Amino acid sequence: MYDLVIVGGGPAATAAAVYAGRKKLKTLLIAESFGGQSIVSADVQNWIGDMSVSGVELAGRFEKHIRAQESVEIKSPESARQISKKENGFSVTTDKEAYQARAVILASGARRRRLNIPGEAELEGKGVAYCSTCDAPLFGGKNVAVVGGGNAGLEAVVDLLPYATEIYLLEFSGSLKGDAITQEKIRAKKNVHIILNAKAERIEGDGMFVKTLFYTDLISGKEEPLGVEGVFVEIGSVPNSEMVRDLVELNKHGEVVIDHKTAATSREGIWAAGDVTDEPFKQNNISAGDAVKAALSAYQYLLARE
Amino acid sequence: MYDLVIVGGGPAATAAAVYAGRKKLKTLLIAESFGGQSIVSADVQNWIGDMSVSGVELAGRFEKHIRAQESVEIKSPESARQISKKENGFSVTTDKEAYQARAVILASGARRRRLNIPGEAELEGKGVAYCSTCDAPLFGGKNVAVVGGGNAGLEAVVDLLPYATEIYLLEFSGSLKGDAITQEKIRAKKNVHIILNAKAERIEGDGMFVKTLFYTDLISGKEEPLGVEGVFVEIGSVPNSEMVRDLVELNKHGEVVIDHKTAATSREGIWAAGDVTDEPFKQNNISAGDAVKAALSAYQYLLARE
Repeated sequence: MYDLVIVGGGPAATAAAVYAGRKKLKTLLIAESFGGQSIVSADVQNWIGDMSVSGVELAGRFEKHIRAQESVEIKSPESARQISKKENGFSVTTDKEAYQARAVILASGARRRRLNIPGEAELEGKGVAYCSTCDAPLFGGKNVAVVGGGNAGLEAVVDLLPYATEIYLLEFSGSLKGDAITQEKIRAKKNVHIILNAKAERIEGDGMFVKTLFYTDLISGKEEPLGVEGVFVEIGSVPNSEMVRDLVELNKHGEVVIDHKTAATSREGIWAAGDVTDEPFKQNNISAGDAVKAALSAYQYLLARE
Repeated sequence: MYDLVIVGGGPAATAAAVYAGRKKLKTLLIAESFGGQSIVSADVQNWIGDMSVSGVELAGRFEKHIRAQESVEIKSPESARQISKKENGFSVTTDKEAYQARAVILASGARRRRLNIPGEAELEGKGVAYCSTCDAPLFGGKNVAVVGGGNAGLEAVVDLLPYATEIYLLEFSGSLKGDAITQEKIRAKKNVHIILNAKAERIEGDGMFVKTLFYTDLISGKEEPLGVEGVFVEIGSVPNSEMVRDLVELNKHGEVVIDHKTAATSREGIWAAGDVTDEPFKQNNISAGDAVKAALSAYQYLLARE
């Protein structure tokens, strides 16, 4: 029986583990991997206090900080599947085992959203990509499309600039959404072509690799082909909240609804922080800060029940 | 006319400035100094991603991160005194000048609370101290009292261990409040004497330095003398919210009431984050995270009004 189970390995889980360790809570952290979603960033410039750090380096620092906590046991790689209410707490079932805990902090983050259009699944890894930092170097001298005009899409374009020949940025709505500073940077490049009001329809290959992305121009209604050998899908993410679907209140996006003052969920004994929650801005520092609230609230809750 | 004025120089102000810079907001940051209250810590072990960093080093990293933002102008040392509503935004008056801005993020933190007992003011710097990290080395071979049994008090004891002879830790209530891990550490030391239910009454000197701290034992009702040459006051802090007293809702502690999802105050156009707010847990990472919410909310507000 643990005092606390933390599910996740990103900034929220790290913050929860560090504070649980400071409080000497008997803690189990269950993580598929460490670092969270920004592990794929080549250059994180907005982790406060660090002007520039790679996602991989930051992930390493998170993991090291977790492993320094004596009272925190780690199961990784291991995947939490289901959390259910038991008499004196909760049971957390993973792909390997079931664990019992008096309290839970859910910091399971979110995963990338897919277009769900014909050709996408078939051509994944054959030109269809979800991680520009990882895969941009594979597209040297090729024409590439990026789908999604938010920060993730803009940053994918920036990642591709040193490699790709022509870069097409497709955005469904009538305007780009990402940071002004990044918009400016990519607008200044002659080989970046911004296509607004564009709905991706299907991806075709030559039997081996991506050859064409078809999109509908939502103004003219016409379907247009783009001759590209790469399609980067950057259209947001889905919260990893399935494991608590029957246990805590979720909003219509599937995000865990929390009290943002304490990170408490609708279920006593369960807290949540980071990208799995309904916090509107998904940022590493917000995840860490809200997870500190979760850990300190959980500590008070556990103390009061000893 | 600035888009945004940020008041403060700690982790909340830093996070707000970095995000305002990423969004290219025309920003003015007014700071008395950089680093916030933890600048006095010799060893910060819970800034997420850093297993150990001195408060001074962390302060330096914050300042560097702020100064890297091209669109952020800095006035420091400068002290914000009053914020008032104007037709198209706000006026921020400092000890030197008045500035106009469309939006404000208040990240002015908190300051140390004083005992307000006889002798305290007279003997400040003559044995009465508020910063154990700064002043512990001055008490080598002396007996010292620490007033306050929360984390700050416990950490003051730890800071004094390598220097002081006998250390008396006085706590008003019937139990210590700080981290279990630190409590254990100091309880193991023979020269640390924990005195619970103790109310500090007055401090007496020899005309030059502290000689005696008098406290009331709240159980027996008797006044007791402690022969000490140092008194470290570690009883919490007061929010620096005077400048917005007539502008936004404060709680009974003088803390700015915020919506913890977006860090909005009761006044449209003003956000607040960090120790000046009603967030119950005062921690560097919470301050930074909530300030990111403030900056991104303020950005959306300003965009919608362009």
